Amino acid sequence: MRVGVIGASGYVGGEVLRLLVNHPDVEITAVTSRKHAGQYLHRIQPSLKGFTDLTFSELDYDRLSEKCDLIITAVPHGSATEIVKAFYDRGIRIIDLSADYRLHNPQDYAKWYGWEHPHPEYLEKSVFGVPELHRDEIRDAQLVSCPGCMAVTSTLALAPLIKNDIIDTKYIVVDSKIGSSGAGAGAGTSHAMRAGVIRPYKPSRHRHTGEIEQELSALAGSTIQVSMSPHAVDVVRGILCTNHTFLKKETTTKDLWRIYRETYGSEKFVRLIRDQQGLYKFPDPKFLVGSNFCDIGFDVDTDNNRLIVMSASDNLMKGAAGSAIQNLNVMHGLDEMAGLRYTPLTPV
Amino acid sequence: MRVGVIGASGYVGGEVLRLLVNHPDVEITAVTSRKHAGQYLHRIQPSLKGFTDLTFSELDYDRLSEKCDLIITAVPHGSATEIVKAFYDRGIRIIDLSADYRLHNPQDYAKWYGWEHPHPEYLEKSVFGVPELHRDEIRDAQLVSCPGCMAVTSTLALAPLIKNDIIDTKYIVVDSKIGSSGAGAGAGTSHAMRAGVIRPYKPSRHRHTGEIEQELSALAGSTIQVSMSPHAVDVVRGILCTNHTFLKKETTTKDLWRIYRETYGSEKFVRLIRDQQGLYKFPDPKFLVGSNFCDIGFDVDTDNNRLIVMSASDNLMKGAAGSAIQNLNVMHGLDEMAGLRYTPLTPV
Amino acid sequence: MRVGVIGASGYVGGEVLRLLVNHPDVEITAVTSRKHAGQYLHRIQPSLKGFTDLTFSELDYDRLSEKCDLIITAVPHGSATEIVKAFYDRGIRIIDLSADYRLHNPQDYAKWYGWEHPHPEYLEKSVFGVPELHRDEIRDAQLVSCPGCMAVTSTLALAPLIKNDIIDTKYIVVDSKIGSSGAGAGAGTSHAMRAGVIRPYKPSRHRHTGEIEQELSALAGSTIQVSMSPHAVDVVRGILCTNHTFLKKETTTKDLWRIYRETYGSEKFVRLIRDQQGLYKFPDPKFLVGSNFCDIGFDVDTDNNRLIVMSASDNLMKGAAGSAIQNLNVMHGLDEMAGLRYTPLTPV
Amino acid sequence: MRVGVIGASGYVGGEVLRLLVNHPDVEITAVTSRKHAGQYLHRIQPSLKGFTDLTFSELDYDRLSEKCDLIITAVPHGSATEIVKAFYDRGIRIIDLSADYRLHNPQDYAKWYGWEHPHPEYLEKSVFGVPELHRDEIRDAQLVSCPGCMAVTSTLALAPLIKNDIIDTKYIVVDSKIGSSGAGAGAGTSHAMRAGVIRPYKPSRHRHTGEIEQELSALAGSTIQVSMSPHAVDVVRGILCTNHTFLKKETTTKDLWRIYRETYGSEKFVRLIRDQQGLYKFPDPKFLVGSNFCDIGFDVDTDNNRLIVMSASDNLMKGAAGSAIQNLNVMHGLDEMAGLRYTPLTPV
Repeated sequence: MRVGVIGASGYVGGEVLRLLVNHPDVEITAVTSRKHAGQYLHRIQPSLKGFTDLTFSELDYDRLSEKCDLIITAVPHGSATEIVKAFYDRGIRIIDLSADYRLHNPQDYAKWYGWEHPHPEYLEKSVFGVPELHRDEIRDAQLVSCPGCMAVTSTLALAPLIKNDIIDTKYIVVDSKIGSSGAGAGAGTSHAMRAGVIRPYKPSRHRHTGEIEQELSALAGSTIQVSMSPHAVDVVRGILCTNHTFLKKETTTKDLWRIYRETYGSEKFVRLIRDQQGLYKFPDPKFLVGSNFCDIGFDVDTDNNRLIVMSASDNLMKGAAGSAIQNLNVMHGLDEMAGLRYTPLTPV
Repeated sequence: MRVGVIGASGYVGGEVLRLLVNHPDVEITAVTSRKHAGQYLHRIQPSLKGFTDLTFSELDYDRLSEKCDLIITAVPHGSATEIVKAFYDRGIRIIDLSADYRLHNPQDYAKWYGWEHPHPEYLEKSVFGVPELHRDEIRDAQLVSCPGCMAVTSTLALAPLIKNDIIDTKYIVVDSKIGSSGAGAGAGTSHAMRAGVIRPYKPSRHRHTGEIEQELSALAGSTIQVSMSPHAVDVVRGILCTNHTFLKKETTTKDLWRIYRETYGSEKFVRLIRDQQGLYKFPDPKFLVGSNFCDIGFDVDTDNNRLIVMSASDNLMKGAAGSAIQNLNVMHGLDEMAGLRYTPLTPV
Repeated sequence: MRVGVIGASGYVGGEVLRLLVNHPDVEITAVTSRKHAGQYLHRIQPSLKGFTDLTFSELDYDRLSEKCDLIITAVPHGSATEIVKAFYDRGIRIIDLSADYRLHNPQDYAKWYGWEHPHPEYLEKSVFGVPELHRDEIRDAQLVSCPGCMAVTSTLALAPLIKNDIIDTKYIVVDSKIGSSGAGAGAGTSHAMRAGVIRPYKPSRHRHTGEIEQELSALAGSTIQVSMSPHAVDVVRGILCTNHTFLKKETTTKDLWRIYRETYGSEKFVRLIRDQQGLYKFPDPKFLVGSNFCDIGFDVDTDNNRLIVMSASDNLMKGAAGSAIQNLNVMHGLDEMAGLRYTPLTPV
Repeated sequence: MRVGVIGASGYVGGEVLRLLVNHPDVEITAVTSRKHAGQYLHRIQPSLKGFTDLTFSELDYDRLSEKCDLIITAVPHGSATEIVKAFYDRGIRIIDLSADYRLHNPQDYAKWYGWEHPHPEYLEKSVFGVPELHRDEIRDAQLVSCPGCMAVTSTLALAPLIKNDIIDTKYIVVDSKIGSSGAGAGAGTSHAMRAGVIRPYKPSRHRHTGEIEQELSALAGSTIQVSMSPHAVDVVRGILCTNHTFLKKETTTKDLWRIYRETYGSEKFVRLIRDQQGLYKFPDPKFLVGSNFCDIGFDVDTDNNRLIVMSASDNLMKGAAGSAIQNLNVMHGLDEMAGLRYTPLTPV
């Protein structure tokens, strides 16, 4: 399969390329960057040195449409609306890593992003790129929109609870912790001011909330709201979502195991983590670096009827580039683990 | 004032000594450590090199009672029950940094610690060492028990809400994040396995919950339960408590400012943090390292009627040694900032 | 190929297994650990969860000799002398990751390790496992001893200078910086005391010096001594060796490029790094995490006739497990990159 | 004493203010920042919240000359040439933290900085601000120029060796490691790309070399050149200089102790570190954070006749702001520790 990557100079684009250079069924045929056109990829993405001799080119829709069977876009939010449409109109399949086609309801762009979507009629053509929830639709989709990193990590934890209707949906508190690579290559704070932070950065109305609400509401068949607060912590890669929920009625650990196994028992990239001994008792992104897993575990606080579901991922993998490749595999009928058979790197 | 420190080889003991060597009204007359008796302090506490020539001695109650006007105990939980009693019975004033005399109800030791308190009759003699809540009692107390680091940080954030009865007390979610020095000098995980973690370590029934519940229930005049979940993150010093609460009725930002100002307006070690611009918009322990402040800020999530109160501290300072010195100042009628006039160290 | 791993509970053993579970030509047939016999591998090596169902077994020489074509030993220094001999005597091929068979001269064990080697007659049977220096011998060796992590990183930088006789061999200063995983799983300092260090830990007579001297002396045909000083810094994985040397006569940058290209031009795992622009101007282990590369670059200080050669690697990869697999590939006539085609993980 | 601080929005300026707000003999009468004029200090320097109500003002030479007895300049290199001259000409005493008046020889600015000094006649009026070397001159100086952070840390280690003429001055290798705050508030790399580096950033001809050479040459009475290579490592604060030197003749550990004690025995801010046991065997900036000490220790590599002298400091303290205050104390006849009586913060 011939793949083109648009906007490959950032962290997510770099991670997409890292995965593609070793993907057994993919040939990278074009890589674009306005800023770096003409330069060798490895100047900007040093880890690719020795793995590819590609240079960045300009974005030329027609030329790319000829050279590529699939386009992956890794441009900043707000910059993908035209690009995606242009390829869509040329009949090319697209996996979009921006937020621009994630929300189905045009009004949600006004609410969460503060701008009006220029092509609202394309929103319903886009499939939310979480194979664990939408595998069949992804298989045949022309446009797949990869989820926000915190959104997918939290949604996978909460979905089984909503599907099985066991929690009070009025009090869903999602407390997220995320590393610095989530901010993107252009947006980071300098090391001296970012190191050692435990910084709340958007305690209410964070944009990823809209995606979680969209997905959980669809599962519930009614509007569900989520109370999400993200925090910046001192890691480069990694997300932990601590999803605090309250049980509607007594639910045993065994019940919960059953619910999660039913939903994810055959999923390749969701692991259930809960151990009494050993190093790895609850999900922790430390043990996921470089892999495409979303690890999920839970604990019951019987004093308060609280169910704490913890979910962890590598924000550049399952939270971005890994999801893109997983979607690519589904779209092309490949083994879902093709090019993604990475163990986590431990310790790192 | 002549002060003795019991168990001065750990992180908290070291921090107590760091503060005492520069305290204008204190002379350190004894420092004990079973393990290091006879050795120079600075062998174990290298930052004291050049500030004191003291050596560790054995714990001898009679000798210490003669040499000291006040004893500060910084021994592990469970080890202070006898030590505190021994000094108490000799008429010496004590500031205890362990958990052994924090809870007033003997049954709480069975519930939270799993052991029966050997001297339950002393529990009511102990004052919970948070001057912002118990200044008058501390002034005359013979025994002051310093709070747990996460307990004091969360309690100071929540107390004004309880006092003013503005939140639904059934849903108080305290999501805490804490650095590695909180584990104590003897208990830490090796660097390679601890670096980069975002690790839930006791999602339900963490011991500090008992202290928060004790203090909030006393303020409310009724039993209050708290849903607390702590997480280990990659800093050495620092705690952030994200206290998720739900408002009983509409409450404006202005109302909330007023409530917090009323409670803490004249407090020296509580700062209200909330800025639209600048580097420091919400509390973050990054900006508190080495200081005795507890910074508090809030945000209202109008979509969910949620009030998020964030509180931050340096767990070795306001969360331990700093509180001890603040209590010492109150007990001896000194300026409450004596020996604690440290700005945070930024950046670090 | 059927491979057994002895002592697989540490960091190096875990990394060996991480590589083996995805190696296309390898089946892991046994994994031993005295301490963890009977337990699932992923309890101790959580990143392997989902990649293997193996359990740890006891070390039984006869049984393992039947089940394995090759044995990789990842036990602590001093513990491999008997194990290696036992398999050697049974005719099994061995890749040893300890230091026990690295030095050819028995007296060097007295000098650098302070003990007498119990089986000195086996030392000459062992090949020093750096394919870039000893590929032909490794191909047919029964016993290959993988180099120390700092030794291989520094030796690869210095070897071309010695071979071409362009530096003053009296003044070779190797200033090394290394992460915490180099200390091994059992030996690490707790996070609070290890975080943020820049700690000299053996300014003179570090053991790896012996290996560098052995290899450089062999290349020179005369005794060469090296002035090495390692430092612990705050990363988990990574080594940088700053090799300060003094040129015998004027040598241009072009000459130096030629020398390095001649030596390593066809090597798969040595990359020459030197760029005027871009993110990656000189070697830095940050850009090598998880990969098997040794990156080498240089700068000339014309004021002092000094040639600074910088070399970087991931101490668990090229510095340990990666070298083991590279040697395995050479020994079995496989593509040298088989199972090692990992790009660095960036950023991490 | 009334002190004004010019350029107080960076890390060094912030640290100067942190020290000044608690200095017993200082009143801060003006703080300037072009960019932030009119804003509260604590917006930009959040750790000062509660310690001062000052606002930034514009730089007005005449007004400041009236309001201040002493000016401290903390502006970027190249920006201080005019500012310092303006105050000098008005008869005001100045402590300059930039590099603009550190070198006495005008030609050195061409060599190390690539520009011609606009006021070369003022260079000889400036005293190099290291009290351990120039206390008497500083006492009466009108202009004191604080040293570069790596320069002072290395120079203090090497000076006694030069004074006592015991090393071969042809081979002085200074391998430095430094944290991210050394880059200044405006110049830092983003966290994701800076975290975890061990990055050589100027292996030859780093600017601080010129200062070390100036000072050592003055001590030696002849030209001395130094081979310096700095590296960026993952700490915020801290410098370690590993000074590799070669002894001219056999020198015992006892001799070396004597030499260092003779030079620094009565110095308040130089500590000699060398212990066989305990946590702190050699200098490590981890154990210096927030303090004004320069710790020095050594090891002899008898195999190579090499003397390794390690020196460590907090780059924002002894390496910048702490030196400024120490100089201020000397200039005004105060106790040299006034306002600097900070223990290191451990652990942090």
